[in-house]
Amino acid sequence: MPEELNVGLVGCGFMGKAHSNAWLNTGKFFNLPIQPGMKAICALPEDEDALRRMAENWGWEGYVTDYKELVTREDIDLVDVATPNNTHAEISIAAAEAGKNVSCEKPLAMNVAEAKEMLQAVKEAGVRHMVWFNYRRVPAVALARRLIDEGRIGKIYHFRAQYLQDWIMDPEFPLVWRLRKEVGGSGAHGDLNAHITDLARYLVGEIDEVVGMSETFIKERPLEAEAVGLTATAGEKRGQVTVDDTVLFLARFENGAVGSFEGTRFGAGRKNGERFEINGEKGTLAFDFERMNELEFFSREDPEGLQGFKTILATEPGHPYMEAYWPPGHLIGYEHTFVSQAADLVKGIAEGTELKPDFEDGLRNQEVLDAVLKSCEERAWIKVGE
Amino acid sequence: MPEELNVGLVGCGFMGKAHSNAWLNTGKFFNLPIQPGMKAICALPEDEDALRRMAENWGWEGYVTDYKELVTREDIDLVDVATPNNTHAEISIAAAEAGKNVSCEKPLAMNVAEAKEMLQAVKEAGVRHMVWFNYRRVPAVALARRLIDEGRIGKIYHFRAQYLQDWIMDPEFPLVWRLRKEVGGSGAHGDLNAHITDLARYLVGEIDEVVGMSETFIKERPLEAEAVGLTATAGEKRGQVTVDDTVLFLARFENGAVGSFEGTRFGAGRKNGERFEINGEKGTLAFDFERMNELEFFSREDPEGLQGFKTILATEPGHPYMEAYWPPGHLIGYEHTFVSQAADLVKGIAEGTELKPDFEDGLRNQEVLDAVLKSCEERAWIKVGE
Amino acid sequence: MPEELNVGLVGCGFMGKAHSNAWLNTGKFFNLPIQPGMKAICALPEDEDALRRMAENWGWEGYVTDYKELVTREDIDLVDVATPNNTHAEISIAAAEAGKNVSCEKPLAMNVAEAKEMLQAVKEAGVRHMVWFNYRRVPAVALARRLIDEGRIGKIYHFRAQYLQDWIMDPEFPLVWRLRKEVGGSGAHGDLNAHITDLARYLVGEIDEVVGMSETFIKERPLEAEAVGLTATAGEKRGQVTVDDTVLFLARFENGAVGSFEGTRFGAGRKNGERFEINGEKGTLAFDFERMNELEFFSREDPEGLQGFKTILATEPGHPYMEAYWPPGHLIGYEHTFVSQAADLVKGIAEGTELKPDFEDGLRNQEVLDAVLKSCEERAWIKVGE
Amino acid sequence: MPEELNVGLVGCGFMGKAHSNAWLNTGKFFNLPIQPGMKAICALPEDEDALRRMAENWGWEGYVTDYKELVTREDIDLVDVATPNNTHAEISIAAAEAGKNVSCEKPLAMNVAEAKEMLQAVKEAGVRHMVWFNYRRVPAVALARRLIDEGRIGKIYHFRAQYLQDWIMDPEFPLVWRLRKEVGGSGAHGDLNAHITDLARYLVGEIDEVVGMSETFIKERPLEAEAVGLTATAGEKRGQVTVDDTVLFLARFENGAVGSFEGTRFGAGRKNGERFEINGEKGTLAFDFERMNELEFFSREDPEGLQGFKTILATEPGHPYMEAYWPPGHLIGYEHTFVSQAADLVKGIAEGTELKPDFEDGLRNQEVLDAVLKSCEERAWIKVGE
Repeated sequence: MPEELNVGLVGCGFMGKAHSNAWLNTGKFFNLPIQPGMKAICALPEDEDALRRMAENWGWEGYVTDYKELVTREDIDLVDVATPNNTHAEISIAAAEAGKNVSCEKPLAMNVAEAKEMLQAVKEAGVRHMVWFNYRRVPAVALARRLIDEGRIGKIYHFRAQYLQDWIMDPEFPLVWRLRKEVGGSGAHGDLNAHITDLARYLVGEIDEVVGMSETFIKERPLEAEAVGLTATAGEKRGQVTVDDTVLFLARFENGAVGSFEGTRFGAGRKNGERFEINGEKGTLAFDFERMNELEFFSREDPEGLQGFKTILATEPGHPYMEAYWPPGHLIGYEHTFVSQAADLVKGIAEGTELKPDFEDGLRNQEVLDAVLKSCEERAWIKVGE
Repeated sequence: MPEELNVGLVGCGFMGKAHSNAWLNTGKFFNLPIQPGMKAICALPEDEDALRRMAENWGWEGYVTDYKELVTREDIDLVDVATPNNTHAEISIAAAEAGKNVSCEKPLAMNVAEAKEMLQAVKEAGVRHMVWFNYRRVPAVALARRLIDEGRIGKIYHFRAQYLQDWIMDPEFPLVWRLRKEVGGSGAHGDLNAHITDLARYLVGEIDEVVGMSETFIKERPLEAEAVGLTATAGEKRGQVTVDDTVLFLARFENGAVGSFEGTRFGAGRKNGERFEINGEKGTLAFDFERMNELEFFSREDPEGLQGFKTILATEPGHPYMEAYWPPGHLIGYEHTFVSQAADLVKGIAEGTELKPDFEDGLRNQEVLDAVLKSCEERAWIKVGE
Repeated sequence: MPEELNVGLVGCGFMGKAHSNAWLNTGKFFNLPIQPGMKAICALPEDEDALRRMAENWGWEGYVTDYKELVTREDIDLVDVATPNNTHAEISIAAAEAGKNVSCEKPLAMNVAEAKEMLQAVKEAGVRHMVWFNYRRVPAVALARRLIDEGRIGKIYHFRAQYLQDWIMDPEFPLVWRLRKEVGGSGAHGDLNAHITDLARYLVGEIDEVVGMSETFIKERPLEAEAVGLTATAGEKRGQVTVDDTVLFLARFENGAVGSFEGTRFGAGRKNGERFEINGEKGTLAFDFERMNELEFFSREDPEGLQGFKTILATEPGHPYMEAYWPPGHLIGYEHTFVSQAADLVKGIAEGTELKPDFEDGLRNQEVLDAVLKSCEERAWIKVGE
Repeated sequence: MPEELNVGLVGCGFMGKAHSNAWLNTGKFFNLPIQPGMKAICALPEDEDALRRMAENWGWEGYVTDYKELVTREDIDLVDVATPNNTHAEISIAAAEAGKNVSCEKPLAMNVAEAKEMLQAVKEAGVRHMVWFNYRRVPAVALARRLIDEGRIGKIYHFRAQYLQDWIMDPEFPLVWRLRKEVGGSGAHGDLNAHITDLARYLVGEIDEVVGMSETFIKERPLEAEAVGLTATAGEKRGQVTVDDTVLFLARFENGAVGSFEGTRFGAGRKNGERFEINGEKGTLAFDFERMNELEFFSREDPEGLQGFKTILATEPGHPYMEAYWPPGHLIGYEHTFVSQAADLVKGIAEGTELKPDFEDGLRNQEVLDAVLKSCEERAWIKVGE
């Protein structure tokens, strides 16, 4: 076993903060076999000021402005990729080729072709790999998986998931990178459907075929100030939104279950409304991230007259991950999904045990996402992975 | 067994409507041994117009404007008292003395002395008697009682109840009869605390001692138009509010449980918020009338990691009263508590079986209410029934 | 204006009970211009015993065992059709041809062809017509429509509805008429999706195109005792389930909104889980029949920092239909949707005003349902009404 | 302004962990004028192993086993007291006398006498002081205070709070320090009622008089292993529980509002159920810590027909403290109340601005708690502070 796991993080935005916090705190809460070292953080030269502040703030030993330098440094064991989607492949592959373990934000890639290259790269390099589908680490979600594995809802008939947000509903919200296809790849689809597709695969199984529809409600938006130049008045120049605002799709799983998926950024009032409901022959599980400490469970095996939806407050020591944190009823939050996943990542690398979800999962996820986009274009059912 | 049960209803206000609906429909939903006959409805001469309309509308065979006439009619088997509180005793006693069965709205009386006279009257006359504490007939509440009887929450530690309404919060709301002591007896106390005290006795047991406090937030209100006379401008003349707006009390039950009670008409936004929570050694039951089809149940006997508050939608055929109504998930409403209680009343009289809650319960209830008022005055703990 | 409206009801099952209750009580709660008369109830000769009991119980003046007799009786003004789906057309058309007004249970017909004939029949006869999509009369749902009409959620982006039940999940549940195509037409689709499709049209507008999928999870079930004959052991003989257990579909509305629909009888724990959420540019509305007295409303126009989902307890006098019933917070139930719709029906016929939803709506609804079934078969997007 | 704020923490239990996490992370999330230094952590010599691990884990520069050493160290600016209740006074006074700023866990003291000494000590020393009533820093709670200050619920009529836990319901749960009067002072009262009393003072105002009741449901419990000695069989020897399991009290506030309080460790299923509801003339606010990111708000000023309880998800940048954390809908947890309070503490000391709640608040709180205990003993209403 290595004595420590030195991390080099690429990215200094929202995800850079979430990952920095995870690396700082994971060893405090979890009893890890080795400690992660916060070696260096990396971003583009134009972000150097923000980068320096983030490095200082979170306690990174240093920072660099060229990921190529980072991935080849001797003192780095894991390259953690938390950049916009269009750079995941390039950085991850470079890291793998430099012999580094890689953990990459979701969605893994811009498309299946990229994802395949990435998977091949980590396999050939023999390095460990993981994708930050962080919601698997919500204790209530991991508990849902445990209950399914124990057979508590039996054969699954229905998976029904929505991921609803509303942060771009104002037509004057600017054309940020997440709304430009060349950077984000897709809109709500890769951002939100990627997550619920991962949960579907985690909780139900592989998806066989899909049919979908896509819509962009606001087709033009103001360019961002930096894109326009300093002299431009805010909102004066507009650009085309080149990604979807929402994608919905129906699915058939390999095991016979049927699925309904919907990701949107136009769900007024839903701030991070990632929700699923799974109906099986023996019961139902339901979850809403906005009440992330709770899992709803209905069991048809409860005595007649005593059946009902039970709200399990997933904060007991026996619930997944919770022993590390606080006493029952003392809730955890969004950031702890990263803290817990970082712990799993450290343990997996240190002990050579399974890392899930990995790039294989990232590829399978991408295959579903791409099939849906193809279905939207061709207005037809599409087999996943073909 | 008698062949029918002819009812004479006294009262043509809100409760008159609720009772009329119950008498009309109870035999449609429930399979009754005998049918209730809607013989006559009675109110004061000054209400004759409203009375005639109510009689015609709900299908009463006739109406009278003197309760003394009603209670002595040969063709009446049951006198149903749904008048303001200060007339309960007079009418009920007259009915009993005329040999009629009596069902009386809650609170049974203005005070313990009246309640005792009423109980004595029905006992001496050998007639059947019941009090309309209708919330015992909410299926979810009756289910709570069943679960307690089955030992599912074990020994009870806590009873905690509130009955919150907000209909008189506007200081310009007029001085209706419910706000005048000589008619209503008390305010929120007799109106709302009477109900939760009944539920406490039904679900937990007898109350041993109490300490309470009372408050009237709005001390003067506009007189009602009819009280002022036709020439008065609305709101011009004001009168003293002589009842409480809220009464809170703590209690010790004979079985060692502790209790907290609160009735108020100043619970902004709570329209009919009758709520209780009961914590026992094995679990908890919780109820809120504003979601009256639901009972919350937590069992400490559920497997570890699977414990949680279960929302039982009490609409299954096996749940109390529900076989009479609609399929699961097809909710019932407020009025059905009266329809169900009327069915129990008819069956109890026809078959000579127990009628609960009866005047004995009404008296016990009154003893608690009076002890609380005495405690408010004397600022001391008061033994119930002394 | 006619002096009364005499009703002949066809059907003595679950819907027969719901309609009988509505006709008995609608005039008690609502101030109607004319009173409905409960003239006769009708069912098949083999159901005569049940029919007689139902007639006596609910106060129908008489009963007949041949609908042809009913529809031609001089003393009947309205034929109310509450029979299995495969008889709606025949009875409704006969009634119309006899010059009777017709109200018919949903779905209007077995298919578009039948629905067109029915619409043509009532139009040619010049009689009034209505379809019992009763959920439009839930006060919270009618309130949702009012808020939309007032522009409170602005342009609509998303309609998302599920109608989840679980009453046939047991594989030993028998092959009742609702599971046989020749009687029910379809399964969850015509039963449940018919309702949410009606709500979609009521609340959002016309649907332009759809793509759907269908599944039958349990493909064989025990025949019902009467179908098997008296000597057969329960469950011994099995028959093919010829309808869907679930149908899901995506939709594009004419106004640009996107929709997601799902009806299933395999939603474990959902008893009558008819739910919708509508996201518009200014806000969101959400509803779940299992809490039918509540409407959720989020407004993006609320002050910043004070936005949130508001639970409107739709029991105020100003809320649709509620003035007829009880004070605020005193809930109503499932049956009141029929009581209220009956009141609208009586008023509409008496005063010659609009009746909605009518057979035109029934036909439009059927066009959507048929397009979905065609889409399931052809695995393609289908234009509605082509 | 000082250049840094060096902290010495006393205590290495549950609160030691909560405080360590706060000191580590507060400067990462909040933009602080100076950084807190994690100088030393302190506990009793017998806990040295646990102490060393905690120091290493959370990054304390060192540890000491004598608080007297800690409080006199030159390099310590703030002594943070997170020990059992019976040592708060001794340590805080010593720290003040050594010229250190002091932050102390709640309840401030064992009784009013101690609290007065402590307040006097910090005043005489001229040092800054704060009490860790951490729930004031729940964003939803701070938002409640803001809405009250803005007059949104108007004059307050009712404060109603419960703090329900269930961790000692098993009669075999051992006699830990919190159940022994000489260490804990009281049971649920000082532990739980202290918090809701603080919230009452924070949100409503000063309490004038109280009447209470106390109960210990389980009167004997197994001694803890260490107390019994190594040879004792677990559960063999039992000791007296010398504190309350529950205390309930009624209160009258100086501003005329009435209050109801209840703390219990026998609320089966309630893990950290700290709940309050405040009814004012214009509206209501309600909170439950088990859904700590949510505040319920009802406004009587909303348009008629659109009134209802609004669930404000208090995770917007404009909500108290939230700008420091994550985007809307990305929940925070229990620990963030300490992280936020630590930030306020650092800022207050650095900038010389108000620190709330301070020892004055701690004393006022203690006066209420003591008055309640006296009321329980004397079975009478007791004036607070007399």
